[in-house]
Amino acid sequence: MIQNLHKTLQLFANLSKEKKYDGIKAILRRYQPADVAEILENLDVVDAERGEIFKLLDRETAALVLGMLDISTINSLLNALGPRYIAEILNDMPSDDAADLLGHFPEDLRNTLLGLMQAEYADEVQELLEYDIESAGGIMTTEYVALPKDITTEKAIEILRKTAPDAETIYYVYIVDSQNRLVGVISLRELIVADPDTIIESIMHRKVISVSVDMDQEEVAEVVSKYDFLAVPVVDKDSRLVGIITVDDIIDVIYEEASEDIFRLGGSTEAVDDYIEGRISLALKSRLPWLFVTMVEGIIAGQVLRGLENELRAVVALAFFIPLLTGMGGNVGTQSATVTVRGLATGDIDESNVFSVISRELLTGILLGIINGVLVGSIAWVWQKNAVLGLIVGLAMIGNMTTAALMGALVPLTFKKVGIDPAVASAPFITASIDITGLLIYSTLASLFIGFLL
Amino acid sequence: MIQNLHKTLQLFANLSKEKKYDGIKAILRRYQPADVAEILENLDVVDAERGEIFKLLDRETAALVLGMLDISTINSLLNALGPRYIAEILNDMPSDDAADLLGHFPEDLRNTLLGLMQAEYADEVQELLEYDIESAGGIMTTEYVALPKDITTEKAIEILRKTAPDAETIYYVYIVDSQNRLVGVISLRELIVADPDTIIESIMHRKVISVSVDMDQEEVAEVVSKYDFLAVPVVDKDSRLVGIITVDDIIDVIYEEASEDIFRLGGSTEAVDDYIEGRISLALKSRLPWLFVTMVEGIIAGQVLRGLENELRAVVALAFFIPLLTGMGGNVGTQSATVTVRGLATGDIDESNVFSVISRELLTGILLGIINGVLVGSIAWVWQKNAVLGLIVGLAMIGNMTTAALMGALVPLTFKKVGIDPAVASAPFITASIDITGLLIYSTLASLFIGFLL
Repeated sequence: MIQNLHKTLQLFANLSKEKKYDGIKAILRRYQPADVAEILENLDVVDAERGEIFKLLDRETAALVLGMLDISTINSLLNALGPRYIAEILNDMPSDDAADLLGHFPEDLRNTLLGLMQAEYADEVQELLEYDIESAGGIMTTEYVALPKDITTEKAIEILRKTAPDAETIYYVYIVDSQNRLVGVISLRELIVADPDTIIESIMHRKVISVSVDMDQEEVAEVVSKYDFLAVPVVDKDSRLVGIITVDDIIDVIYEEASEDIFRLGGSTEAVDDYIEGRISLALKSRLPWLFVTMVEGIIAGQVLRGLENELRAVVALAFFIPLLTGMGGNVGTQSATVTVRGLATGDIDESNVFSVISRELLTGILLGIINGVLVGSIAWVWQKNAVLGLIVGLAMIGNMTTAALMGALVPLTFKKVGIDPAVASAPFITASIDITGLLIYSTLASLFIGFLL
Repeated sequence: MIQNLHKTLQLFANLSKEKKYDGIKAILRRYQPADVAEILENLDVVDAERGEIFKLLDRETAALVLGMLDISTINSLLNALGPRYIAEILNDMPSDDAADLLGHFPEDLRNTLLGLMQAEYADEVQELLEYDIESAGGIMTTEYVALPKDITTEKAIEILRKTAPDAETIYYVYIVDSQNRLVGVISLRELIVADPDTIIESIMHRKVISVSVDMDQEEVAEVVSKYDFLAVPVVDKDSRLVGIITVDDIIDVIYEEASEDIFRLGGSTEAVDDYIEGRISLALKSRLPWLFVTMVEGIIAGQVLRGLENELRAVVALAFFIPLLTGMGGNVGTQSATVTVRGLATGDIDESNVFSVISRELLTGILLGIINGVLVGSIAWVWQKNAVLGLIVGLAMIGNMTTAALMGALVPLTFKKVGIDPAVASAPFITASIDITGLLIYSTLASLFIGFLL
């Protein structure tokens, strides 16, 4: 980790201004690629100077660093060094990182870069680009080690020694048949421990857990997490090994998916990258749709209140409890929706326990309703010195919280069932829906008891 | 993965009823430890039968499986097999898993089990139990490989071969001096590639990135994620190596921290484990405090409306727009709070860009306010056939959304600054606070324009 980023950046900027590139090169060598990426991203210099610093890195480090940079820094390097230089670096990048990076560029530039890359490797990367970016194919790398089953462990280690610099991981070795179908797996740990003359086939694991190339990245993350894997093999529909996904990419997926769920639950579809880029237009575009949904629901809620017009005119105090009812009902609904959406995302809620989840939320809603209904009803009674008003508010609270908890659980479960992302059952969506049902309950109770209120 | 869990469970239950343990043993061998854990957790049999099945596992598998089970299944096994049997298995578990498991038990039982364990190992586990469970010390394991710097790579691999079964990972080898201070690191990949006669010191990395034993687990996760590590070494204040944290545990931390943030943002403090255990009492305990906050805020909002009593009596239609205003304002506030809380959690928002975040949210709020204010104001005008009412509602919407966006960003940032978890700025908390400010703006505008309304 960089102890004092600000000071480090200052040092780099000064050395760069004085063109002391030997000094910069010596300092760069002390840092990890991730740190170099952080420095390049935050360095306050012109594109040309950033390019000069990048050129000081050895090829291997440059390839790693390029895979970690944000898109604006990459564009800056592209400006400074030109597509031919960047294409050279792309040749040395793992195929998943290269595809990821190219995927961020407009089509023209992407094709230019692919054209400048080594032809065979460009084809390989091009193939990866064709997979859905949120599928196993979209995050896998083609740099894995696959061996035949009839060699000895000694021979296997010898091969690993040679392929080590190119492979994304050598800690798992996959065993394939002549059609490249996955038939076994063995860890480097097991190869090391085994007798050198052992034939791989006799010690490999035959039940290999793999993911299919079109599996959603969130599910892939669940598999890797469940089995504590360092990598998982990816197979096509004919069980042929086409790539591997390593655990570092899975960590990125888990962060990304959690952010996506959190943003959706908060009523905003903006992607994390977009947020960091900070473009207001993207913020508006991603937030407005949810506001329009809330607007329509708000107008319906207003229409419900319009039905209560006469009662409101007679007993204006009925209006004072509207924010209390909608606020607390929305609160209970958000609580239920949040735990349900998260449970679905982590796999803790599935078909086996869906009914216990619903009944648990319903019971929680009833109990919360009774506790808060009695409390709020009593407060209303004392505050407005009106027992009937207290009764109406208290009963409305019980009904409101019960339906809120039930809706909070049912809506995301229903969305999941029909193939919509459950996180669309966001706080704003749920809150506004509960406003309507809560006010319907309140209106009905108020019209029933209006005779006693006057 | 288990293709058909329901069918598999049925098969196990039937074989268990007929006491066909050889058959069960043969089937168990086909599954990964994580799958065996899933089967044991979901198997609908009495404790004694579950115990019999667990006893069929070889020691190594049993230790892995025990570390993956939920607490109710562990209690069931404890019932069936007794503490002496479980203590034996604990001896074979990695120290972090053993400490984790023991940490879930009441003190009495924990001490009984520690007393029954192998004395030296019990002390080691006991030490781990003393760290904060959310710190590096609380999630680290003591099963790492540490070597002196003056041996050859061949010798190093030979040692790894012997220690492989006990170490949590052999893919990183840490180099320590005579005081056990961390002086270098080398990966198994590098050992394999190097010439067998090379002295480790000449090829090891000297700048080792490590975490301190009291670092928060969320920060540890950021380090591992940033550098794409498979494990990170943990050092005490004298730079002595005390443990390592492997990437599989980091994945658990990332899931756990994301769930915690999501639950808090949704207005519920329940822990993920508690939710899965499904105890209603815990759901009530974790949700009620947020409801009381909302209740107090709802009463204040009611009091604000009470100040509008005369205006409401005169123009009852003013009440129809209360849910629309509070709903949409709460929506904007939740959106801003969510992106801010997540940005703080992932480290994308820090001191360097806090002002650009605030100004961005403020500008977004103003723009959203204008767009929605004009729209809602026009709708109010047409709907209620009253231009002044439309003007009041439209202006209130602009003011409401601007303050909502600003509060949504400022509240979590302030919480962070004073050391409160920013996720406490949850949807319910923000929504209810914005109800108050929104209604204050609405009331003020309504009293100003009431002359034109009548």
